[in-house]
Amino acid sequence: MRALVKTAPGIGMDVRDVPVPSCGPTDALIRVQYAGVCGTDLHIWEWDSWASNRMHPPVVIGHEFAGTIAKLGPEAAAAGLLQVGDVVTAEGHIVCGHCLQCRTGNAHLCRRTQIIGVDRDGAFADYIAMPVSNVMKLDGIPAELGAIMDPMGNAVHTVLEGGEVPGSTVFVLGCGPIGCFAVGVARAAGASLVVASDLNPTRLAIARAMGAHATINPSTEDVTARINELTNGDGMDLVCEMSGHPAGHSQAFQVARQGGRVNMLGTPSRTTEVNFARDVIFKGLTLYGVTGRKMYTTWQQLGRFLRAGQLDPRPVITHRFPLERIGEAIGVIKDGTAGKVILEIGS
Amino acid sequence: MRALVKTAPGIGMDVRDVPVPSCGPTDALIRVQYAGVCGTDLHIWEWDSWASNRMHPPVVIGHEFAGTIAKLGPEAAAAGLLQVGDVVTAEGHIVCGHCLQCRTGNAHLCRRTQIIGVDRDGAFADYIAMPVSNVMKLDGIPAELGAIMDPMGNAVHTVLEGGEVPGSTVFVLGCGPIGCFAVGVARAAGASLVVASDLNPTRLAIARAMGAHATINPSTEDVTARINELTNGDGMDLVCEMSGHPAGHSQAFQVARQGGRVNMLGTPSRTTEVNFARDVIFKGLTLYGVTGRKMYTTWQQLGRFLRAGQLDPRPVITHRFPLERIGEAIGVIKDGTAGKVILEIGS
Amino acid sequence: MRALVKTAPGIGMDVRDVPVPSCGPTDALIRVQYAGVCGTDLHIWEWDSWASNRMHPPVVIGHEFAGTIAKLGPEAAAAGLLQVGDVVTAEGHIVCGHCLQCRTGNAHLCRRTQIIGVDRDGAFADYIAMPVSNVMKLDGIPAELGAIMDPMGNAVHTVLEGGEVPGSTVFVLGCGPIGCFAVGVARAAGASLVVASDLNPTRLAIARAMGAHATINPSTEDVTARINELTNGDGMDLVCEMSGHPAGHSQAFQVARQGGRVNMLGTPSRTTEVNFARDVIFKGLTLYGVTGRKMYTTWQQLGRFLRAGQLDPRPVITHRFPLERIGEAIGVIKDGTAGKVILEIGS
Amino acid sequence: MRALVKTAPGIGMDVRDVPVPSCGPTDALIRVQYAGVCGTDLHIWEWDSWASNRMHPPVVIGHEFAGTIAKLGPEAAAAGLLQVGDVVTAEGHIVCGHCLQCRTGNAHLCRRTQIIGVDRDGAFADYIAMPVSNVMKLDGIPAELGAIMDPMGNAVHTVLEGGEVPGSTVFVLGCGPIGCFAVGVARAAGASLVVASDLNPTRLAIARAMGAHATINPSTEDVTARINELTNGDGMDLVCEMSGHPAGHSQAFQVARQGGRVNMLGTPSRTTEVNFARDVIFKGLTLYGVTGRKMYTTWQQLGRFLRAGQLDPRPVITHRFPLERIGEAIGVIKDGTAGKVILEIGS
Repeated sequence: MRALVKTAPGIGMDVRDVPVPSCGPTDALIRVQYAGVCGTDLHIWEWDSWASNRMHPPVVIGHEFAGTIAKLGPEAAAAGLLQVGDVVTAEGHIVCGHCLQCRTGNAHLCRRTQIIGVDRDGAFADYIAMPVSNVMKLDGIPAELGAIMDPMGNAVHTVLEGGEVPGSTVFVLGCGPIGCFAVGVARAAGASLVVASDLNPTRLAIARAMGAHATINPSTEDVTARINELTNGDGMDLVCEMSGHPAGHSQAFQVARQGGRVNMLGTPSRTTEVNFARDVIFKGLTLYGVTGRKMYTTWQQLGRFLRAGQLDPRPVITHRFPLERIGEAIGVIKDGTAGKVILEIGS
Repeated sequence: MRALVKTAPGIGMDVRDVPVPSCGPTDALIRVQYAGVCGTDLHIWEWDSWASNRMHPPVVIGHEFAGTIAKLGPEAAAAGLLQVGDVVTAEGHIVCGHCLQCRTGNAHLCRRTQIIGVDRDGAFADYIAMPVSNVMKLDGIPAELGAIMDPMGNAVHTVLEGGEVPGSTVFVLGCGPIGCFAVGVARAAGASLVVASDLNPTRLAIARAMGAHATINPSTEDVTARINELTNGDGMDLVCEMSGHPAGHSQAFQVARQGGRVNMLGTPSRTTEVNFARDVIFKGLTLYGVTGRKMYTTWQQLGRFLRAGQLDPRPVITHRFPLERIGEAIGVIKDGTAGKVILEIGS
Repeated sequence: MRALVKTAPGIGMDVRDVPVPSCGPTDALIRVQYAGVCGTDLHIWEWDSWASNRMHPPVVIGHEFAGTIAKLGPEAAAAGLLQVGDVVTAEGHIVCGHCLQCRTGNAHLCRRTQIIGVDRDGAFADYIAMPVSNVMKLDGIPAELGAIMDPMGNAVHTVLEGGEVPGSTVFVLGCGPIGCFAVGVARAAGASLVVASDLNPTRLAIARAMGAHATINPSTEDVTARINELTNGDGMDLVCEMSGHPAGHSQAFQVARQGGRVNMLGTPSRTTEVNFARDVIFKGLTLYGVTGRKMYTTWQQLGRFLRAGQLDPRPVITHRFPLERIGEAIGVIKDGTAGKVILEIGS
Repeated sequence: MRALVKTAPGIGMDVRDVPVPSCGPTDALIRVQYAGVCGTDLHIWEWDSWASNRMHPPVVIGHEFAGTIAKLGPEAAAAGLLQVGDVVTAEGHIVCGHCLQCRTGNAHLCRRTQIIGVDRDGAFADYIAMPVSNVMKLDGIPAELGAIMDPMGNAVHTVLEGGEVPGSTVFVLGCGPIGCFAVGVARAAGASLVVASDLNPTRLAIARAMGAHATINPSTEDVTARINELTNGDGMDLVCEMSGHPAGHSQAFQVARQGGRVNMLGTPSRTTEVNFARDVIFKGLTLYGVTGRKMYTTWQQLGRFLRAGQLDPRPVITHRFPLERIGEAIGVIKDGTAGKVILEIGS
């Protein structure tokens, strides 16, 4: 079958012909139809320090996907809960099930996590084998949208952690694809005011298309002043930190209200100087680090938003490429012109 | 001033001329503009066993209202947080502030609660004096809607208790005014599916106008079958029991999903036979009794829904009367043709 | 191997020689050392209506046990997380992993649950095969105590649901083995006052040995009066309803404080007449139906209590029998003289 | 009356003769018996940048106290909930009751907070007038202990925020008085393992006296290695950051487990460099800034711990002085030889 492979250390990836993966007793073999390209894939392409420290080529890339079950292992088939032909997506974090985190509802923080497309073969291929425990039926969600439930799930996790979104004010700081999804999730979840900021006007336009009541460009506007104006000086109940920049952190702490919450998803590449006394302790703030998706509450919530039509992520999808044109996909992500980029792999 | 007074035991109420209430050091004297008529007021009019056991006439009736601050007591004025002329509403439960419930975030369950219009003089009058701790500025909410924030708050409390409305399925069982408000609140809070039931087609029409995805009339439809069809057999995440009938309780327990929640607001006048093993224990259900509004989280959430336009209660308001026509107001409530009924008192 | 088998409808069970169960790819075959006898096993022995409606003999009985891993299936062995020789216990609810409940942290309410010793072969035998996802290492907990972590887990689930035990007042209504465990759990979890009631003085003595600050015998004392005296009239924050009797329910609702919680574990065999207005709605009570153990948060919490020596269940264990003397074990449970009864099976 | 007054900018405080404060309509005038000396009082004595920026002398100092009600204002007396002669303590944060924080259960974060002994006259005096809403009866707690419920409440807030202490592992980083109280609170609340660290062996000895299972001196031991050893490599569920040092923050993030929580009370005087990717986001940590005491849930919990004898703070009290010897009190705090220091004021 075709597969996009990180064949060796260094820049780039290659389409190769590799064997169809074997399907273990509790696995589903899935014919991939669509896959999403993630910032992580860009890091792998570029072979940055994170990638070179963590990965062991050759590895098939890709962790966001949807497709059709082509085969079930004998145990999986006997369980009778999935069928060949089911249109499915899957959680890409394969966890141990036995550690403290797995045993206490925090499997997304399993210390033995294997991520597909990073630690083991991934989804930019004609087929992928996945443990059925990670596989979920789309039940009416179009496969193209099912393919990006992983990053949409990041947004759901970021917005809903804290549990008080209805009637609240939400600031999305950074409008990459997950930030734009977060805008839509906050609206779907009943936020009263959703404000988004980014330096890139194209991204702000997508955020508005996803339902932001207001957008702010920090290059031309005073973010704190605008937020104070929009909230009568209260500040925001929830800040979703999607930028991963020290300046974003500082801004996040400043605009969060007394007793507010900052859920942090954007991954910074360097350290941040924090004034804990002023910005966290005296404000009574809660900070929360977002990793992955809650397994599987996040997926359930997202599935319902999508099936009910409360969340429509299509304004965020800006590009579609066949598998072979991965170089172009990486290119549009790298130059900042893309929202979400999708690979069309099978049918 | 004019006031609607329960002058003595027995049926009815009378408009009387009474002194303007005195305004204590921490009170606001409020010029009443609008007031809402509640099922409780019907019980008082009818002088049922609850009313005759609890009340000590003469009492000025009415606990839902909005108006303008006419005067502030010296301590209240010195605090500088409210001003004469502010358009306000108020929580009608006056609590002690010292009991276990008041000291642990459950003031709505204070064992020394005094309810205006029941235990002390109320709001169906030209003026009412209220402790400023109970008074809230409307800040842009129209006074007519401010006057019914008390019952809308009951709906907010019923829908949001449990904290997992975004993406969930909500069944509103009983479409009196608070049930219809609950439909709107569930939609505002991001529920994926809101279903309402009632025997009265007029009320079901209001529920649909408030945003119910589906309505069910148990007199002609099999409620459980419809719910199973709408939820793929899962049942509902949250049931808001607004009917107060034993048959409603039984229906509520039946359609709630395994691990679901039944928040009970409707006040039954008799006992219910409950199969706790089948309906609660093996289902892992949570039941919760709703009293009043959380002080004051509920009011904050509701204020935001109204100011943001996420909740528009106007389809529920079916009648408006001047103070003197209270008999007609009680009449339309009694014969079931009314949604919410408002008294126009001042200007 | 030896196994205690419900061979056919009717009263009793028989020790039979049956084949050692096969060990699937993701299973552990466990050499059983100790097992606990549960009220459920009494129902099965007696073949009451619950048992006759649910079970399909022949079935090996028993769901509470601990033992040593004798063999691992190939997938389980490859995972490397368990080893032959590990001393383990297991959750006896085998769940589907795919339903709404399993996918949202409520696997204990899975609608496809198979219970060992009821729906499939159980643990009163020399060997049992269990999916490794259900198996947990005892890590220092004595195997005899590990064998009764299932019912101790019921107690942990009942006491900790609600999350506010430290400093609170807990009433354990019904002092069967799980009630007595609940007393110990409430003490371990930092309750300020733990009160237990039962009609049986022997059980009350065990409750005191487990740490109850006070015990009440309703046959000779006024429970509500005692509770009011012990709580300055506040009532109890949490009532653990372990009796399963309508009179217990009524008592539970009465002594729970305004805004309190009643967690119900005792399974009633008939219906209860409930005054929801007086007992639930106006009190702002929360009722919660306890099924099984949270998978696997409950097990983690319990494991820590046991390893730290915060909970010592040994005062509750009153009898030990070899497998062959099951009739005597059932007998002491039936005549009410027993606390917890343990079968000594292997070594 | 006597009062300890910050009379003017600069170092020190003076005992002065000042008028007894007036008692407003909703106030209680309290005869002070005992008062606690806090690190804040040291800042005020030293007139550091925080003090000089915030305070406007002359101000009577002191915010931790207990005493006897000498007089009630007319509204307070009419309410009948407190009586002259009641032995009481009080929350020293006087809040507005109207802001978003006050209206949503976060009055401890009120933006208009006035702190006694800082923003208005305090408790190091023969009498203090307090709004009765802030006053709580000791109901059997010795007045000397009632006088330090403020800092013990800080410890309760720090330990219990997160709500999962029973059976958990708690690391108290920094063993000043509040850290030592936190050790006792964690034990009272059912933690399975409580570990404390400090550079000062005297403080570690107090922590052990308060119930720490283990103590670590970072000057001679590898904290992370010890924690890993004590927790089988899991790390700690909850870290209470009481040191207020950047090195403490760094240590806190390192030893908190994946998915753990760091509640931060120690107030740093400078910024901290944080690696959010490694230490917060990939670990799924929650950080929470602790300000004051939850009004009044914290006080209720603490009162119950003290009345039930679950928490005995006496090992932390190392010094007692009369009001006039404030200089000595400040001295022992400054030189690090003190635990908690109490002023004996009245009788």
